[in-house]
Amino acid sequence: MRLDIKEIFENPEKFLNKEVEIEGWIRTSRSSKKIGFIEINDGTFFTNLQIVFDEKLENFKEIEKLPISSAIAVKGVLVETPKAKQPFEIHAKDIKVEGYSHNDYPLQKKRHSFEYLRTIAHLRPRSNTFNAVFRVRSLAAHAIHKFFQDRDFVYVHTPIITGSDAEGAGEMFCVTDLDLANVPLNEKGEVDFTKDFFGKETNLTVSGQLEAEAFALAFKKVYTFGPTFRAENSNTPRHAAEFWMVEPEIAFADLNDNMKLAEDMMKYIIQYVMDNAKEEMKFFNSFIDKGLVDRLDNIVNSEFGHITYTDAIKILEDSKEDFQYPVKWGIDLQTEHERYISEKIFKGPVFVTDYPKDIKAFYMRLNDDEKTVAAMDLLVPGVGEIIGGSQREERLDVLERRIEEMGMDKKDYWWYLELRKYGGTKHAGFGLGFERAIMYLTGMKNIRDVIPFPRTVKSAEF
Amino acid sequence: MRLDIKEIFENPEKFLNKEVEIEGWIRTSRSSKKIGFIEINDGTFFTNLQIVFDEKLENFKEIEKLPISSAIAVKGVLVETPKAKQPFEIHAKDIKVEGYSHNDYPLQKKRHSFEYLRTIAHLRPRSNTFNAVFRVRSLAAHAIHKFFQDRDFVYVHTPIITGSDAEGAGEMFCVTDLDLANVPLNEKGEVDFTKDFFGKETNLTVSGQLEAEAFALAFKKVYTFGPTFRAENSNTPRHAAEFWMVEPEIAFADLNDNMKLAEDMMKYIIQYVMDNAKEEMKFFNSFIDKGLVDRLDNIVNSEFGHITYTDAIKILEDSKEDFQYPVKWGIDLQTEHERYISEKIFKGPVFVTDYPKDIKAFYMRLNDDEKTVAAMDLLVPGVGEIIGGSQREERLDVLERRIEEMGMDKKDYWWYLELRKYGGTKHAGFGLGFERAIMYLTGMKNIRDVIPFPRTVKSAEF
Repeated sequence: MRLDIKEIFENPEKFLNKEVEIEGWIRTSRSSKKIGFIEINDGTFFTNLQIVFDEKLENFKEIEKLPISSAIAVKGVLVETPKAKQPFEIHAKDIKVEGYSHNDYPLQKKRHSFEYLRTIAHLRPRSNTFNAVFRVRSLAAHAIHKFFQDRDFVYVHTPIITGSDAEGAGEMFCVTDLDLANVPLNEKGEVDFTKDFFGKETNLTVSGQLEAEAFALAFKKVYTFGPTFRAENSNTPRHAAEFWMVEPEIAFADLNDNMKLAEDMMKYIIQYVMDNAKEEMKFFNSFIDKGLVDRLDNIVNSEFGHITYTDAIKILEDSKEDFQYPVKWGIDLQTEHERYISEKIFKGPVFVTDYPKDIKAFYMRLNDDEKTVAAMDLLVPGVGEIIGGSQREERLDVLERRIEEMGMDKKDYWWYLELRKYGGTKHAGFGLGFERAIMYLTGMKNIRDVIPFPRTVKSAEF
Repeated sequence: MRLDIKEIFENPEKFLNKEVEIEGWIRTSRSSKKIGFIEINDGTFFTNLQIVFDEKLENFKEIEKLPISSAIAVKGVLVETPKAKQPFEIHAKDIKVEGYSHNDYPLQKKRHSFEYLRTIAHLRPRSNTFNAVFRVRSLAAHAIHKFFQDRDFVYVHTPIITGSDAEGAGEMFCVTDLDLANVPLNEKGEVDFTKDFFGKETNLTVSGQLEAEAFALAFKKVYTFGPTFRAENSNTPRHAAEFWMVEPEIAFADLNDNMKLAEDMMKYIIQYVMDNAKEEMKFFNSFIDKGLVDRLDNIVNSEFGHITYTDAIKILEDSKEDFQYPVKWGIDLQTEHERYISEKIFKGPVFVTDYPKDIKAFYMRLNDDEKTVAAMDLLVPGVGEIIGGSQREERLDVLERRIEEMGMDKKDYWWYLELRKYGGTKHAGFGLGFERAIMYLTGMKNIRDVIPFPRTVKSAEF
């Protein structure tokens, strides 16, 4: 019976004292003259499985010398080992080499720095840490789809290549098939984009929100989940040039509905990962971030707090904390402020709402005070902002005024404005930076270590 | 009780003769002096719901004049209508306008051409056809995730921006943040990419396969599902510059395992969509492609055929068909050949395997005949090729030889080659063009009509 090793760990009784066939890569290997022990991992389960083999194997001498990371196929009997560390092991009857490795395999047993492992991104998913990170990433992605699909949201693939700048806030990569050594110019000496593939200037998207709004006004409940890009020259542990975003958008919904959705979603993702990656979460809790599991448990079981920006500013001003960035009404909250609010005041996740309009995007709904907009940021302990969202401005005249105030061109938003003209009901949405969520779930501190092949300033290897 | 209209259609007994609250957009509206009928749709269910309202409403006159696509919130009682076309309707007690529309709304009841609807891509998901298409697209995407996650595959986000050319076959978009009006050149007069964001030339990915292989050799079973790009100047109904691909990759697996996986996946997706989009599939079957449902049923219930390329060529040569492209061993099969094989010979889906190495990519496993490779294409009636895949060359020396034969540079593939050096067991994978699958599922004939906001030659609107 050919099995994934996961099947054995999840249901050992089913296979005890029976012959099973598994495949995998050697993680550790030791042997004396007559007997050998291999810990094998096939990538389907976090914990290694022990294989015992002895000189009755005709290729005993070949097997005992195999370098780690060699691929083997094992036939043998699963037996209980009540006195040993591991609960069971396989007594091999036959071991076949599926793929040799070499003694210069870079991932030897000793611990490597995360910096070094980034230089071997093609091999690092075989290490405990990255195996756990990327399984959690996969499970969290599925949790997101499951959460929304179970609630009848429609998944929309918004465009990656775009002629519009959703946020109205630059720093985009250009996409072109012009010959860069010979860029065609027009009479004015400007780039002649009519000769480019799309006949116009195009960029990589920074957000699918505007397009998602069009679909929310057809399907009521939609979400996007795809890559987004920033050509931002920020070499920090929290910035990548390419990252994935989740952007739900709901019609007939206001800021309260939006916050409810965000809270439900966060709790669902966390619970799903804790239920489906038990070994991995235990590992992170022991080796990466002590207290992680308690912190996540606490989030699942708490009610998220709510405070307006204006009240938050008052608390910060009254706090007598020595902040690096001075606090006053109108500033954008910095991570230190966000963490103070969520860690010291609310001791848990908290939504800050109703920010000054001047520090938020043009599409956020203007409040009656004409000074603030119906925005919401979700702040969580240890991280700060993890979700940003808003109710959208559905009033055509107000939206047009805001676009003009921002110095943007209404013509560029003709279709976005039309959504307000034809049954543009109230609606709201938010964005979750997927990598930030994975960092939060795993305790990993560098965004480069939660992306399979990260793209950052001056780095696009693999 | 605030409800999605879907909840009412799925379980009307639960709400009959009770007061319910729904929201949605007016699809049709007619009235006499004292009574009015609105068909409303909130995007959660394909079929419209009828609202009956009368002059007892204080805003009767306002409501009866609302242009279609206006958004309203309705409170009323759900009642059975045994004699009418529809099984039930809502007798409104209160109707509130949530968003006005205008009489120049472009999606009036008369039928529009798909060409015209492409020019209003922000509104077309409100039409029956595109509402159905994009719901099927969403469900099919979820089916893919569910299929793989239920089988413990790990979802990998392979990079979108890449320095490597996976297929070794050009036609890529360049990604840059250089000032195109002022591209820096080096001493040789070449573009100085060291000044670019990533410090090197970068492109949009054409495939995540090579990176997926790295993860398959850590996790055994992985898949990608993300956007891919071709800067191909093909203005056809089957080509888009931006499209989504699904690329599973399995270790300890050969071409037979690969074909089994592809067959299981295709059947699963089709069954999932037929189960979860009954109204939409009925609509496609009636208005877009008569016979669609039978054809799909047939696929779910048939065993896929298998034939080698060499045998397929013989059949084509012996067929006496008048093909536009002449047939002989060594040619790449054209759509006319593919459709002949699947429609006339197998009358169903068929895998063609073991293609000549010279028409396939460098990474496909060389067969013992040294002339063919362990490739597989899945051909389906009505479409032709829908899946392409192969067993991958796991032998380092053979792979290096193939890279050299193709005139490619081994240095560019250092990490891909290392996968073979360190426990590089046999493995295989395939790619499914997601849009082709959606065209196949819906009967839609133009790829522009299955992508929310399509990107094609000279077109990147919205």
